[in-house]
Amino acid sequence: MSKKSRYFRLAAKKSRPKDFYHQAGDLPGALIVDADAPVPKIELIDYDATHAMCKEVTTPEESATYIHNSNSVSWVDVQGLGSEDILRRLGKEFDLHPLVLEDLVNVTERPKIEDYEDHLVIIARMVVPKDKTYGFHSEQVSLVLGKDYLLTVQEEPEYDCLGGVRSRILKGKGLIRKHKADYLAYSLLDAIIDGFFPVLEQYGERIEQLEDEVLINPSRQTLLQVYQIRRELLQLRRAIWPQRDMINALIRDCSDLISEEVRIYLRDCYDHAVQVMDMVETFRELATGLMDVYLSAVGNRMNEIMKFLTVVSSIFIPLTFIAGVYGMNFEHMPELKWHWGYFVCLAVMAAIASGLVFFFWRRGWLENASNIAHD
Amino acid sequence: MSKKSRYFRLAAKKSRPKDFYHQAGDLPGALIVDADAPVPKIELIDYDATHAMCKEVTTPEESATYIHNSNSVSWVDVQGLGSEDILRRLGKEFDLHPLVLEDLVNVTERPKIEDYEDHLVIIARMVVPKDKTYGFHSEQVSLVLGKDYLLTVQEEPEYDCLGGVRSRILKGKGLIRKHKADYLAYSLLDAIIDGFFPVLEQYGERIEQLEDEVLINPSRQTLLQVYQIRRELLQLRRAIWPQRDMINALIRDCSDLISEEVRIYLRDCYDHAVQVMDMVETFRELATGLMDVYLSAVGNRMNEIMKFLTVVSSIFIPLTFIAGVYGMNFEHMPELKWHWGYFVCLAVMAAIASGLVFFFWRRGWLENASNIAHD
Amino acid sequence: MSKKSRYFRLAAKKSRPKDFYHQAGDLPGALIVDADAPVPKIELIDYDATHAMCKEVTTPEESATYIHNSNSVSWVDVQGLGSEDILRRLGKEFDLHPLVLEDLVNVTERPKIEDYEDHLVIIARMVVPKDKTYGFHSEQVSLVLGKDYLLTVQEEPEYDCLGGVRSRILKGKGLIRKHKADYLAYSLLDAIIDGFFPVLEQYGERIEQLEDEVLINPSRQTLLQVYQIRRELLQLRRAIWPQRDMINALIRDCSDLISEEVRIYLRDCYDHAVQVMDMVETFRELATGLMDVYLSAVGNRMNEIMKFLTVVSSIFIPLTFIAGVYGMNFEHMPELKWHWGYFVCLAVMAAIASGLVFFFWRRGWLENASNIAHD
Amino acid sequence: MSKKSRYFRLAAKKSRPKDFYHQAGDLPGALIVDADAPVPKIELIDYDATHAMCKEVTTPEESATYIHNSNSVSWVDVQGLGSEDILRRLGKEFDLHPLVLEDLVNVTERPKIEDYEDHLVIIARMVVPKDKTYGFHSEQVSLVLGKDYLLTVQEEPEYDCLGGVRSRILKGKGLIRKHKADYLAYSLLDAIIDGFFPVLEQYGERIEQLEDEVLINPSRQTLLQVYQIRRELLQLRRAIWPQRDMINALIRDCSDLISEEVRIYLRDCYDHAVQVMDMVETFRELATGLMDVYLSAVGNRMNEIMKFLTVVSSIFIPLTFIAGVYGMNFEHMPELKWHWGYFVCLAVMAAIASGLVFFFWRRGWLENASNIAHD
Amino acid sequence: MSKKSRYFRLAAKKSRPKDFYHQAGDLPGALIVDADAPVPKIELIDYDATHAMCKEVTTPEESATYIHNSNSVSWVDVQGLGSEDILRRLGKEFDLHPLVLEDLVNVTERPKIEDYEDHLVIIARMVVPKDKTYGFHSEQVSLVLGKDYLLTVQEEPEYDCLGGVRSRILKGKGLIRKHKADYLAYSLLDAIIDGFFPVLEQYGERIEQLEDEVLINPSRQTLLQVYQIRRELLQLRRAIWPQRDMINALIRDCSDLISEEVRIYLRDCYDHAVQVMDMVETFRELATGLMDVYLSAVGNRMNEIMKFLTVVSSIFIPLTFIAGVYGMNFEHMPELKWHWGYFVCLAVMAAIASGLVFFFWRRGWLENASNIAHD
Repeated sequence: MSKKSRYFRLAAKKSRPKDFYHQAGDLPGALIVDADAPVPKIELIDYDATHAMCKEVTTPEESATYIHNSNSVSWVDVQGLGSEDILRRLGKEFDLHPLVLEDLVNVTERPKIEDYEDHLVIIARMVVPKDKTYGFHSEQVSLVLGKDYLLTVQEEPEYDCLGGVRSRILKGKGLIRKHKADYLAYSLLDAIIDGFFPVLEQYGERIEQLEDEVLINPSRQTLLQVYQIRRELLQLRRAIWPQRDMINALIRDCSDLISEEVRIYLRDCYDHAVQVMDMVETFRELATGLMDVYLSAVGNRMNEIMKFLTVVSSIFIPLTFIAGVYGMNFEHMPELKWHWGYFVCLAVMAAIASGLVFFFWRRGWLENASNIAHD
Repeated sequence: MSKKSRYFRLAAKKSRPKDFYHQAGDLPGALIVDADAPVPKIELIDYDATHAMCKEVTTPEESATYIHNSNSVSWVDVQGLGSEDILRRLGKEFDLHPLVLEDLVNVTERPKIEDYEDHLVIIARMVVPKDKTYGFHSEQVSLVLGKDYLLTVQEEPEYDCLGGVRSRILKGKGLIRKHKADYLAYSLLDAIIDGFFPVLEQYGERIEQLEDEVLINPSRQTLLQVYQIRRELLQLRRAIWPQRDMINALIRDCSDLISEEVRIYLRDCYDHAVQVMDMVETFRELATGLMDVYLSAVGNRMNEIMKFLTVVSSIFIPLTFIAGVYGMNFEHMPELKWHWGYFVCLAVMAAIASGLVFFFWRRGWLENASNIAHD
Repeated sequence: MSKKSRYFRLAAKKSRPKDFYHQAGDLPGALIVDADAPVPKIELIDYDATHAMCKEVTTPEESATYIHNSNSVSWVDVQGLGSEDILRRLGKEFDLHPLVLEDLVNVTERPKIEDYEDHLVIIARMVVPKDKTYGFHSEQVSLVLGKDYLLTVQEEPEYDCLGGVRSRILKGKGLIRKHKADYLAYSLLDAIIDGFFPVLEQYGERIEQLEDEVLINPSRQTLLQVYQIRRELLQLRRAIWPQRDMINALIRDCSDLISEEVRIYLRDCYDHAVQVMDMVETFRELATGLMDVYLSAVGNRMNEIMKFLTVVSSIFIPLTFIAGVYGMNFEHMPELKWHWGYFVCLAVMAAIASGLVFFFWRRGWLENASNIAHD
Repeated sequence: MSKKSRYFRLAAKKSRPKDFYHQAGDLPGALIVDADAPVPKIELIDYDATHAMCKEVTTPEESATYIHNSNSVSWVDVQGLGSEDILRRLGKEFDLHPLVLEDLVNVTERPKIEDYEDHLVIIARMVVPKDKTYGFHSEQVSLVLGKDYLLTVQEEPEYDCLGGVRSRILKGKGLIRKHKADYLAYSLLDAIIDGFFPVLEQYGERIEQLEDEVLINPSRQTLLQVYQIRRELLQLRRAIWPQRDMINALIRDCSDLISEEVRIYLRDCYDHAVQVMDMVETFRELATGLMDVYLSAVGNRMNEIMKFLTVVSSIFIPLTFIAGVYGMNFEHMPELKWHWGYFVCLAVMAAIASGLVFFFWRRGWLENASNIAHD
Repeated sequence: MSKKSRYFRLAAKKSRPKDFYHQAGDLPGALIVDADAPVPKIELIDYDATHAMCKEVTTPEESATYIHNSNSVSWVDVQGLGSEDILRRLGKEFDLHPLVLEDLVNVTERPKIEDYEDHLVIIARMVVPKDKTYGFHSEQVSLVLGKDYLLTVQEEPEYDCLGGVRSRILKGKGLIRKHKADYLAYSLLDAIIDGFFPVLEQYGERIEQLEDEVLINPSRQTLLQVYQIRRELLQLRRAIWPQRDMINALIRDCSDLISEEVRIYLRDCYDHAVQVMDMVETFRELATGLMDVYLSAVGNRMNEIMKFLTVVSSIFIPLTFIAGVYGMNFEHMPELKWHWGYFVCLAVMAAIASGLVFFFWRRGWLENASNIAHD
């Protein structure tokens, strides 16, 4: 209702994973194109050990001559899903099953691998840390691996973690130009998995910051953030678990499209996926632990507040009672007549107060109360 | 006892899953027909690649000629379980084992698949979101898949998520008319699984709303709703887990009734079932997290209330004590005689109050207390 | 110490599962007969498709002629374990391994199945809801299945859920008379598994009642009951888990004593056992959730109590201070001399009180406080 | 610091499992003999179907003639690990691998089984309830099973649960004298597993007692004990889990040293181990539940304390304010002059107090407060 | 912000595991050498049954003649990863795959084993307790096992738990000189696994200390430490789990490089790894339990504080009210005129106070309050 609450609401909104809901088409194999999705941008990279070239093409058909040329490796990279027409033509060009085409467009698929004899379909999910704020951008990347070509389909041109591979091909760095399309697919998967590490590093840092906050000054904002982190880690987990299984399937299943040598590289990629999973699980446990600490810290702080109230009340309530007694208007109250009565009364009050202070000091309550002061 | 409590009770009642209790018949294979169940309505759809027709039949026997005609696919859809006679005749017509007939009627079966040589029995469970309120309607759908026919038995005619398939057959949209009964069975299962997504979307939204409530203004209503969501997600989970296993069994087990091609489609359906499970588990974890947040937020709020009480008490209790001292009736109290005594006394009180306010401000307690005001 | 505490103690005592402790005999195969156990009552039912008769026998040897007659099925039902002599003679008659005999008597065995070539030993556990109070009676039922006979051994004659099967045999209802001893064993297991449902239904109802209590008026009694339910569900779980495995073993293991047809029926029984397990797990999760809700509700209620105290204290403590100021006895206090001083003072007090009430009303504290009133 | 705290510390100390830390020798196969360990006491029992004798031997070599005599079964029982010399000579006599010798001495091994062709090494762990206090004594028992001999090595002569087996051999009770060494090994394992039951029974009783305490009068002592129980059950669990696997391995692995008949007996022993595990897990869940109940009960009790404080404060604070008003010293306060003013004032106070009491009674707060009194 | 908070921050910083983040190179097989890493120190130990020598070499090539000499075992121990040149030359000398070289340098790999026909690559992780403070130093140790040589690569020369093995070779203690390189690899793995025990022992002691603290005097420091321990145990767990799998793979996978005899020794090593895992899990459960106890203890302590406040307030608030009544200035208050009025009033007050004290004593509140005093 107030500004603050609106802020919370917005924060929560933004964190809502866009990939949460599968939009069920009533027709299996139907292409439901999102009207707001960016128009596809098609980039073609063709290379062999001696040459490499990159050009932007406007129609899927342009790439035909390249992909059917078995002397070089052709990488067709489609970024954006905003045109049903182009996607259908892509499907025709690459000879894709209607269900595969649906999977490419439906950007909420679980990472998986499907073997269609002459090509492998790999659905992966990449994450890119957000620029200015916490959190990450998550995007489906589909790979169709054929004998001498690789088709990749990404949701949006904006976010991308495949730039490193692209430049390695064009500059001829590393071994990539000496290998076939399967090594290219491995390189992309490796880049996708390695892309999880900077995102995780961010969470490591946030959790560290929150540890301090939770112990020193637990506030509602802290609570919100711990919950937010748990929520986002759940998303990361949903992204990495099936990805690990998918890479494992690539290693085990004996498709002819993946050479023995690339399988060795994929084992390395698999190890990294397992490492990402380990870290996600570790962070999840830490975040759960933080929630426990939060609860304990709130209880602890309450204890200190109550001690303060109890100390103040317990000292002054008895004194006020004494003052009340000598404020009574009975006609016959002998103490009131004594010359030093007032001062004796004050002295007794001081004695009682000192006794109580000593009592509380022995219990260590004052110490704790002063702790509050030094936070 | 009050209206509120009655409201709670009713809310809880409604949420009681109607499918919780298996009504154990003492005779295996016995048909226990619920007297309140709607009278069965039998609809027959017969189609091949070139034609499609739909008619309502009144007796199971009427469908006989269609289901034994191997040139076209016949779909017999029974809605309502209110007549033992009709069900027994159905059983005879389709040559069903007594245990199968019992399973059709006993609407609390776990999703499963049973292979009876010449027909497959598939017990599925569909969910339909409720119209005006939260929650969902859950209903058992039994499929008996034969060579050229499909028998489906639903609990009630009212709720239904198979309408899309029906209209696709009649309008000849998609591939459905070109395939056999196994593709029809797949289409129905796909529609059933996809029917979980709108229900889940609703939970996503409710959890989002509750996140705000829990952090801003945790009340008993919030608590009730978080618990309610956990409860309903448990039900969803019980519905989807065995369904996944059932679809997996359909893919693996080599019944001749399912063609290789349809198995590929079923793999897609299986992926969606896994996705539903993932989402149910994610929501369950979020709801559990919300409960933790609720507990922490309640503790946090208590802290702020106690701080407010402690600030107010700690400022006024000492001042009241001073006023009490000068309200005493001792005859000899020199300060009382001073001309400016009263004003000095007020000044001292003001000084003490300022000191305490400063003390609390330094600790940040006032800030927190004012937070309460801006909620 | 008080009556209440004794009540709690007794309630807890009664809930102590009698099957918790295995009484370890130091001799393997030793028969440790409980002196308090009821004297065995032996009932013999002999039937085939055309006839059925039931008589009570006094010695195990009397049943000999029946069980070795392969034309009819003989069911020897022993209820009560109070005589070592009779049990030993039973063992000799049915040719039982000493370990089997020990298992029959040791009523705390885990459900399991043992295959001794010419007979199968099945240890099952049945539950019967208690008559007047909550909870259930749990009892071991041992089945020894031979070619043409079935020996069942129950702990006590009092509780029994096999009556339905007995009457179906004698009245010739259903298929039971047309089948062999394996179908009889299945029928008993089915009755035992189905016997869990009424017990579970009771827990469903109790949990529903507690949901209201926990949210409206959480008391110590509620807490006790939630804990009690968790405790009893743990027992149920220990009873049903191994039972499921045992039925599964019956289906898979290829003993000649179980025909193919009965295996189909056992699959149905297995499905029900899985359903029982599902429900037990669901209830366990609900009960755990209830404990969380209880904790939150207690915290919530505390908040409301503290708000009430804070509102009352914060309004009257400053007013009392003002009254204290004008109760001081300084000689020179100008306000005291003013003619309208008293009324001005009262007006100021009223203004302060109104301001505070408005302040609290804006924060919604009064609303919450009045909530307490309407519970 | 005070006596109480020292008591806690000691209690915790004692509970520290002595088997927690493996003392890593830097030489694999090294014998690290604990200087404080008791000197080995070697007892030799030699028996066949017709005779049995028992004598204490002083050197391992004395048993040589017995163990190589294949006509009778020889059981060499070593109690105490305090002499490296004797242990090395034992190793030589029984032809043990250096690693086996290390395992015998290193009393913190996990229960396991190792197959060395001509002998089996079984590492087991036995528990014995403590005499006067709660808790249990845990001790490693190593069995080396050869063709006609069994070597057992125990940590200490003091605690022992094998006495029953010893007396059965000497008195010729049961079947033990008719079997070979494998049956003897089974008998000992059975005695070890059965030895868990009295320990578990103790925990059942303690948990029951704590249930009362937690609900009626939750104190710090209760909390300590719940934690202690959880801690000890963790130890029991670590002892029984690998023991179950070990017995299972004995049953499955086809060592010639275990006859088919003894395998049947071991299945029984396996069932008991599973039962122990079940009970340990059940108790663990109960103890976890108790912790939840403790937390809730503490919160509940706090509610009642706060209600009491709120009731007392809310009644007297307004009354004190009224008294304060009429204690003011304004010159012109008309009420003070009224003849019945004082009594009207008292009546108003009484009315307010009654109103508040009625208000609190309606809310049920008084009822709860009186509950506190009857605890 | 204060000194304390900075202390917390630093403590948390230090605990941040340096091995948390994989530094993803964009080129697979790239060597990313950390500029701050120590310069590699290469030590060569060459031995057979009759001789052993140790020298420090400066270039990898120097070791060439040793490692290709099949008569003796050569152990090349590289400590420090600070030179890309040396590492590349090492890779060439030992004929390592680029991915292996990357694994050696990337010190955040998960423990694993890779089989490259003529050599095995084992990635292990060793932990060394810190000297003066709590916690441990964690370091990757890579082993490359060839026919007659072993290459080990460690992160830093400073920490090391392999000294025992080194001295055993040089002094000829134990069996190590009689075996081949596979036994050396086993000895190192054994030393690495055994190195976990002193670290775990430390945690056992810390948990014990915290148990006292949590129950007696739960403070924020305690909470911090419990959380810290959970955090560090998570790290240990991530180190030991894959290590166990790795040793298991060594035992099962039939590489020719590991002899049958060494496999027996590895089984012992595997048992110790399982024991480490058991202990880590046990400590984790204890630490989680401690958090629960902390929360309960905080609530308990709050109860006692509130009881104290309630006792003090409830006794003095009514008395103050009475004093207030007789401080009123009504003209006609008969009691004020009574000669003994004052003393009667005092007596009544004393009676009320005594009654309340008795009331609280009966409830046991005073007892608890005095408990606070004796902590």
